[in-house]
Order: sequence, then C-alpha cells, then structure tokens
Amino acid sequence: MSTFQWPQQVSLREVGLRDGLQSIARTLPTAQKIEWIREAYEAGLREIEVGSFVPPKLLPQLADTADLVAFAKTLPGLVVSVLVPNLKGAERAMDSGADWMLLPLSASHAHSLANLRKTPDEVVAEIGAMVQARQARGSNIRIEVGMSTSLGCTIQGEVAVDEVLRLLKAVLALGVDRVGLADTVGYADPRQVGELFAKAREVAGDKLACGHFHDTRGLGIANVMAALQTGETRFDACLAGIGGCPHAPGASGNVATEDLAYLFASMGIATGIDFDKLMALRAKVAAWLAGECLHGSIAQAGLPKPLRAQLTPEKALA
Amino acid sequence: MSTFQWPQQVSLREVGLRDGLQSIARTLPTAQKIEWIREAYEAGLREIEVGSFVPPKLLPQLADTADLVAFAKTLPGLVVSVLVPNLKGAERAMDSGADWMLLPLSASHAHSLANLRKTPDEVVAEIGAMVQARQARGSNIRIEVGMSTSLGCTIQGEVAVDEVLRLLKAVLALGVDRVGLADTVGYADPRQVGELFAKAREVAGDKLACGHFHDTRGLGIANVMAALQTGETRFDACLAGIGGCPHAPGASGNVATEDLAYLFASMGIATGIDFDKLMALRAKVAAWLAGECLHGSIAQAGLPKPLRAQLTPEKALA
Repeated sequence: MSTFQWPQQVSLREVGLRDGLQSIARTLPTAQKIEWIREAYEAGLREIEVGSFVPPKLLPQLADTADLVAFAKTLPGLVVSVLVPNLKGAERAMDSGADWMLLPLSASHAHSLANLRKTPDEVVAEIGAMVQARQARGSNIRIEVGMSTSLGCTIQGEVAVDEVLRLLKAVLALGVDRVGLADTVGYADPRQVGELFAKAREVAGDKLACGHFHDTRGLGIANVMAALQTGETRFDACLAGIGGCPHAPGASGNVATEDLAYLFASMGIATGIDFDKLMALRAKVAAWLAGECLHGSIAQAGLPKPLRAQLTPEKALA
Repeated sequence: MSTFQWPQQVSLREVGLRDGLQSIARTLPTAQKIEWIREAYEAGLREIEVGSFVPPKLLPQLADTADLVAFAKTLPGLVVSVLVPNLKGAERAMDSGADWMLLPLSASHAHSLANLRKTPDEVVAEIGAMVQARQARGSNIRIEVGMSTSLGCTIQGEVAVDEVLRLLKAVLALGVDRVGLADTVGYADPRQVGELFAKAREVAGDKLACGHFHDTRGLGIANVMAALQTGETRFDACLAGIGGCPHAPGASGNVATEDLAYLFASMGIATGIDFDKLMALRAKVAAWLAGECLHGSIAQAGLPKPLRAQLTPEKALA
C-alpha cells in the first residue's frame, strides 16, 4: 500500500431510494422521497438512483419513480439514475428524462432465473434490445450494466470469474456506457474483490465504473477499500445502510453512505459531501423509517476528535 | 493489491478475557473463564491474553489472573500472555509463569497521564526497570510493548507519527522482544494504518508483531487489512467484540475474533481456527454476558454458502 497512489476524489451514488426502499415493505410518501433527494443533493451528493421502473404491482414502494426523476432533474448538476429490468422499463426511463438507466445482469445463472426468469444470456439479449431502443429513439440516456451476484450467490454459491468476464465482454460489445460489479448478497472478501476488479478492469478499462457492496458480513468497507486499491473510484452506498436486516435470513444492507463519507474524509479523499448535513438527513430518514433495521457505524460512535475539528473548526474552538 | 503476496497464515490472539472483560462491570466466575480458555484452545487459538496484573481493587473482574495463567499453562502449545501496568505487576507476572507480559505505553501524552498518571517517557523508564527486573531474576518471560493510542486519542486528538516512532525506538533500545500498535479508541483509518505500520516496520523490523484494532467506527476490519498489506500477520481480537457499546460514549469494542476468523478463512489464509467451535464458544460466552453489548457481523449473518460447504463438506452434501 505504501506505493499506492490514492485518488484525490471518489464519487458516491446514493441508492437508498431504490436498493434500500425496495426491500422495505412500507411505502414512503413521495413528498418525503423528494425531501430525501433534495437534502442529499444539499449535502453534496451528485448522483442519486431515485427509483426503479418495474411494474408498480411488483414494487408499489417505487411506483412514483417518474415523479422523482422529474423533481431530481430540477437540481442543477445532479446525475439521476433509475433501475430498469426490461425493455418496457427502458421505454419508461427514456420517457422520464433520467440521465442513466441501470440494467441489472446476474452473473449467477440460478439467481438470474430466480430473479428475472431469464438466463444471463437472455438478459444480455434484452440489454441489446434496450441499446437498440435507445438508438431508435435517438435518446441520449446513458446505460450502465450492474453485474449482480458477481462475487457469489445465495442460491448457486460460487460464481465463476470467467463467467463474470464473459458477460462483461458481451454487454460492452453491445455498446453500453458503463459497467459495475455488485456483491449483491454480501459474500465477497477483500482479496476476491481486488482480484475480480483487477481482471474486470483489464476487460472493461475505464468503463468499469462502479463498486456496489453490501455489508452483510461486516466486510463492506474492506471490500470498498480493495476495489479502491485497484483504481475504482465510484461506489454505490445507501443512507443508514437500509435494505437489510441481520435478523431476516438472506437480507443484506448496502454499505452506509455516511460510513463511506466518513471513511473517505478520514483518508483525505474528497467526496464533496457535507458530513453534518448528511447526518441530519440520516436522522430524518431514520425517523420516517422507525421500526426498520438501520445500519451504519459512524452514526453510533460519532466522528473522531481530529476529524470533527477539521470539519467544523468553529466548534473545535468553542 | 494485485502484486501483493498474501501471507499463508496469520496469528490471532484472543484478548477478550482481558481487554473485553475489563470494561464490563460484572465479574465472570473463574470456572467460566477457564471454560472460555479451554474452548478457545480447542477451537484452535494458540495465543490468549488471560488477564491483567493490575491491583484487584481497580479491576476486580481480573483478580483471578494468576489462577487463569496456571490453568492456561496446562494446555500444550498455548502461548499465555498477561497485561502488566507496572513493576509490581511484572513481578506477579513472572511469578505466575506466563509466557509473555504485555506492557501498555500510550503514545498520547494526555492519555498516558489520564490512564497511568505518568508521561510516556516515565512509562518508558518503568519499562526499562521491568526489563532489568526480568534480567535480575533470570526469568525467561518475554516482553511485548503495546503502543496504545498510537493512531489517535479521545483526549488529545491527533497523535504524531514521529512521537510513536520515537517511543518505539526507545523501548526497542531497552531490549523488549516485541512491539505492537493499537488503535485503542477506534480512530484509525486504513490509509493511516498502512502508513504508520510501514514506518514502524522500518524502525522495528520483525519486532513489530501485533496490530490491535477497535471497530468503534466500522473500520476495524479495513484497518486489519491495511496492516496485513504492510506485512503484519499477527492481530489481537476479542470474542463477540466485547469491550465496547455504541450507546456508551467513548466505549469501543475490539474487532471480533470470529469476524477475523471469517475474514481470513474467506481469503484462504490459515488461522488454525475451527470456525464452528469458535461460534459455539461465542454462543456460550454471549449467554454468560447476557445484557452486555456484543458485536460482530458474521454471528448475525452466517457464513456464505461456498465457505460453509468448504468448512463442513458433509453438511454441504446433505
């Protein structure tokens, strides 16, 4: 690590409104989601995944995604992404004016069948159809493929690295703009992450531009570090680590946005995030979600004294 | 990380009986502590810090340390260490037959005064007296200096790297056998850990032989990884991460032994630990400590399917 050149800055994408809320039964009112988006923006986040264009009957919690895109697009410089599971969703995403659509592709054959009722190669074919639909409409929406279960699967167990790389090549050949690797179920370890990201970067180059980690087994932050050390500088994160509960079998929360904000601030790597504003938002969202499993370490312990002083010099002088 | 040569094995020292129990008000019966030591040994741990030779009126929880050393020394191949805060404690440690005495030295001036009522240099002088006492008795006990608050301090805030290195040189010049670096209050970040361990290794070489991390702010595992990547292969850990409670200001638990056992097993690095036996012991200790704050992620989520299959092939076939 001594010879490693740390990046000057990294980007965090808030995914709590999609990956977090989709696994919580209750539906937040649209007004609260808009407040969440606005305050995340005011806290310095510049990429937010606001929802998903899945059929509303499957995920009623996310049925207001088009309204959220419309609001989010009023915030200057905010990059707005939405999850899109199929061609119909892609049409809705293009209608909405979102900047990016995130297309999930399970590297695990078993997970792909269970989740989307398609094999990975059938999903690749559908991604091809979505790329063509974009071209046909002359849309300038950009396309990111999120390779889920790329580091292990609760159904299948191990997922072969060669299969991940094969699928990455296949979607890059279709002309997608960006790919990311996700440890959807919190199975990854830092050694594995470092090795997979290094190999994926050989295949995808700078188009590999997202690390998505869950903290199910306590290795989320270490996995972010491992990806960072291969050159990855863009990460998904979820306010309060929502979307997982240790008491629910198989559930798993994303790494908490505020924990990553703290991690990078500690290391002197810029994220553009105002920590105190982010924590104020966390408190608000926690109240809205009272009774749900929340996660995150820094919210419990508070900032170390030197970092606290650095972030708020006036308080340190008091 | 791609060029990093991972070690084949690492050593974990269980410190729950000392660092964990000293911050819990209740006193575990000696019989339970003996059961803990025996089962930790049967789970494969080969280094255990069984207690502390501090005045019993200060820490009545640890008053049975001599009895625990006596028992622990009956287990073949178990390396038994005790914490020793002063010369009188060193005499008791040498009387006890312990293999190692661990001498704490705060790199933070403020912490040293608050904790031991001595400046760091006064503590260095006392360490010199302990080295001489060992020589005078012809004892073959070995001496490790644990540099506490070496990565930050709740009282003082930042701790200068140069001060840590100066104190390391001072105690090495006295003839101590080993030194370790401790993030006593959970302030460290992985970049800082990597840099400090690299510099300390230039000073101490192979005598730098312990990383002691607290998980107060969720970076414990990432900090272990950072030290590992500088060549450190020996770590303290605490069953169930006891010794800290997120609801108690300033409190902070050690990284959980079972989380480190999981981390290294995932990465294919040997620890000699039987994971299932360790988890059975954890459940037992958790019952003894019902009502205390326990920590650790893997105990909540369970092993990933591939690792589960690898550890217990007969169950995987069932």
